[in-house]
Amino acid sequence: MPKPHQLHLGAFLRPTTIHTGAWRYPGALPDANFNFAHLKRFAQTLERGCFDAFFMADHLAVLNMPLEALKRSHTVTSFDPMTLLPALAVVTERLGLIATGSTTFDAPYHVARRFASLDHLSNGRAGWNIVTTSNPDAALNFGLEEHVDHADRYRRGREFFDVVTGLWDSWADDAFVRDAQNGLFFDPGKLHVLNHKGPHFSVRGPLNVARPVQGWPVIVQAGASEAGRQLAAETAEVIFAATPTLEDGRRFYADVKGRMARLGRDPDALKILPGAFVVIGDTDAEARDTRARLDALVHEQSGLAALSIALGHDASGFELDGPLPDIPPSNASKSGRERVLQLAAREGLTVRQLAQRLGGYAGLAMVGTPRGIADQMEEWLITEACDGFNVMFSHVPGGLDDFVDKVVPELQRRGLLRRAYSGPTLRDHLGLRRPPNRFFGG
Amino acid sequence: MPKPHQLHLGAFLRPTTIHTGAWRYPGALPDANFNFAHLKRFAQTLERGCFDAFFMADHLAVLNMPLEALKRSHTVTSFDPMTLLPALAVVTERLGLIATGSTTFDAPYHVARRFASLDHLSNGRAGWNIVTTSNPDAALNFGLEEHVDHADRYRRGREFFDVVTGLWDSWADDAFVRDAQNGLFFDPGKLHVLNHKGPHFSVRGPLNVARPVQGWPVIVQAGASEAGRQLAAETAEVIFAATPTLEDGRRFYADVKGRMARLGRDPDALKILPGAFVVIGDTDAEARDTRARLDALVHEQSGLAALSIALGHDASGFELDGPLPDIPPSNASKSGRERVLQLAAREGLTVRQLAQRLGGYAGLAMVGTPRGIADQMEEWLITEACDGFNVMFSHVPGGLDDFVDKVVPELQRRGLLRRAYSGPTLRDHLGLRRPPNRFFGG
Ligand SMILES: Cc1cc2nc3c(=O)[nH]c(=O)nc-3n(C[C@H](O)[C@H](O)[C@H](O)COP(=O)(O)O)c2cc1C
Ligand SMILES: Cc1cc2nc3c(=O)[nH]c(=O)nc-3n(C[C@H](O)[C@H](O)[C@H](O)COP(=O)(O)O)c2cc1C
Repeated sequence: MPKPHQLHLGAFLRPTTIHTGAWRYPGALPDANFNFAHLKRFAQTLERGCFDAFFMADHLAVLNMPLEALKRSHTVTSFDPMTLLPALAVVTERLGLIATGSTTFDAPYHVARRFASLDHLSNGRAGWNIVTTSNPDAALNFGLEEHVDHADRYRRGREFFDVVTGLWDSWADDAFVRDAQNGLFFDPGKLHVLNHKGPHFSVRGPLNVARPVQGWPVIVQAGASEAGRQLAAETAEVIFAATPTLEDGRRFYADVKGRMARLGRDPDALKILPGAFVVIGDTDAEARDTRARLDALVHEQSGLAALSIALGHDASGFELDGPLPDIPPSNASKSGRERVLQLAAREGLTVRQLAQRLGGYAGLAMVGTPRGIADQMEEWLITEACDGFNVMFSHVPGGLDDFVDKVVPELQRRGLLRRAYSGPTLRDHLGLRRPPNRFFGG
Repeated sequence: MPKPHQLHLGAFLRPTTIHTGAWRYPGALPDANFNFAHLKRFAQTLERGCFDAFFMADHLAVLNMPLEALKRSHTVTSFDPMTLLPALAVVTERLGLIATGSTTFDAPYHVARRFASLDHLSNGRAGWNIVTTSNPDAALNFGLEEHVDHADRYRRGREFFDVVTGLWDSWADDAFVRDAQNGLFFDPGKLHVLNHKGPHFSVRGPLNVARPVQGWPVIVQAGASEAGRQLAAETAEVIFAATPTLEDGRRFYADVKGRMARLGRDPDALKILPGAFVVIGDTDAEARDTRARLDALVHEQSGLAALSIALGHDASGFELDGPLPDIPPSNASKSGRERVLQLAAREGLTVRQLAQRLGGYAGLAMVGTPRGIADQMEEWLITEACDGFNVMFSHVPGGLDDFVDKVVPELQRRGLLRRAYSGPTLRDHLGLRRPPNRFFGG
């Protein structure tokens, strides 16, 4: 009998909503992104909805956009993920807690230690989203004149991963005997000194934290390039994908799972969760109307900045209420530009509407009734376009509450989503095995 | 009328007790250092006792001691302070939360961001203990063959401080207007881009966190050298001192406050808190007996390792039950060695007893009844040897509970310690002003 299909759900919560107009929506909380009381309530609501995890993106600079657009952004002040997640660990019991950590602008000893600490503090609920950091402005905050070259970022990222996981294996699971009678705190035969020396890092070890509850926190990846996919196929247990259509989703899924099979990894040991922007209505028309109202709240300046980036061409002089003018070819990503042109043609959007759509959110969106959204999620799942979703809420608290109160029950009725957590750890939620210790087995 | 004398109390809690034998004491919690439920209860007890702050030391390596001694150490697995403190922020309301952060092995942008996040999360209770990191083994975990030279550590530390505080001032206090009507999230005139370029760091900014609730988290320092004192006189608002006698305390106090006056800083803007190891009994004899029993639980190997370090001479071959033999002069700190010789002579200790004392805790100790301890604290305070103490508990939970239940009421009766917090922030507890923003005033 084949395993029943099961959706895994992450909640994309830095920012609390990716839609740049949403903080202005009636009833939305403009400061949600930076207000612990709100974030606590969101996490508790997600736990009630049996989500696998709370997911914190991270950026080591304010967003790289012109000040005219930046001043309208609700994400410009945010908690550091590794400060927020320990606090959320205290007010939740089961929800997984995934934070992004950069391999380009941090040191493996720090990252190993912090994620190990979070895993212990949360009793096995931590995940590390490995990023090589795409925002070039981050480099300027860390002593560099320009961003590290892409290939070198990924080579460094791979070695970083080896060091971090090696440090997590510093201690056997049963190293700490705490024998007060004989004054023996740990068994010295169960301590391994890493002594790593590689092209990017030289790290002696051992880590000054016991082996994580989960062995290793769950390894997450979000890279999309060839190098990113390969790193994911080799190391990741979850991928946050950005596949905008069902067809892209299937292609990406087959590509990455195929790479795994060729590497001898069980394709089931990695869950692929595309980001999905969800707008819920009691009718399809109501959902579409909510989206249109959200998009209308994106300021022209933010929209034009996003449109310029997507086109690789300055859009600030375009006639706002006319159609998209012809533009010369450029060096920008061809597929990205092609998608924008198709979108404008398909929906017959003016420059203003197109800019507002892009400034809001232009990736995979599910806009409809709870049943319609469940239908789409089910289709993605059973046609092997994903193992679940990283849900982006249209606005908070409304969009988040509606998802948990309306979409979750529909998914549960269909047997696609758990009604209660089956175990305490994030690995339990995701159906991932606990990695053995490379030095001590087990 | 002169201001009434007021004690400021920090609790030195990484490790939960500095005494290396204490985890073996009857009724002690061997895993206290790495058990969130216990640490939570300790923090709440300290808040009941109106302590100014919970203080986390930090080490970026396991302690540098021989494996024979290390395997007996209860501190070898610990939470990262910046993971633990956000969690404790959620379960306390007033207690200050001070973490150690290294200027040698971290980046200013990370440190600025994390402490700013903690300050917001705790509503103004964060403090940053600036250390240049003394454990040479830390260097080996961060890509270096040997430790950075002392003078260079301090030059880097000073520039690090300038960058961090500059980043904290990135935003005016009233920058975030969140005007949903007009779509303006912040006032661009209230954003400052740091553009720091110095010998050690080049950091553009701005920080992606709003200005801390306290303006800046409280600046703490624990360096003892000439360079350490000077950095403290220039920048610190709290010093954790390690002055072992009343006389040393007065000298240190006069030295640092004198440096401040010469720099034009108000000496009251810095509080000096020596570490004090406290052993409480209902009688003096009972307290002395508790200390003797604690020392007897220090394993010979741990004691001999500590004795060897203090003497700068390998003590492992010494006759354990005889007196300290004559030893040749060495390069080790002269004052440290002299103190050990005096201690052995004064108390007539055998090598074993001396080793156990040093392996336990050999700095300032207050051993006696609650009234006797209050007498000593009062004497230090009124003779200008300190502004309070960084209390080290003999063992946990016993020593901590006894301090709050017995010593605190005695201090309150004498008017030396608050009976309730007068304000919400750590700056309020310490009587420190909120620093103005260097770019925007206020
Ligand atoms: C859902 C999702 C979340 C991401 N989160 C982050 C993030 O938090 N921080 C970051 O620097 N990059 C983030 N990225 C960017 C990726 O790490 C990566 O840089 C980007 O997908 C480009 O891939 P490549 O570097 O492999 O070309 C995210 C990407 C996706 C799809
Ligand atoms: C009470 C106290 C706490 C300290 N905590 C730490 C610590 O957590 N981490 C650390 O690396 N050094 C710590 N130190 C060491 C000091 O930062 C400093 O390195 C040491 O006092 C030597 O001073 P110097 O470097 O100015 O010579 C502490 C010192 C004292 C007195």
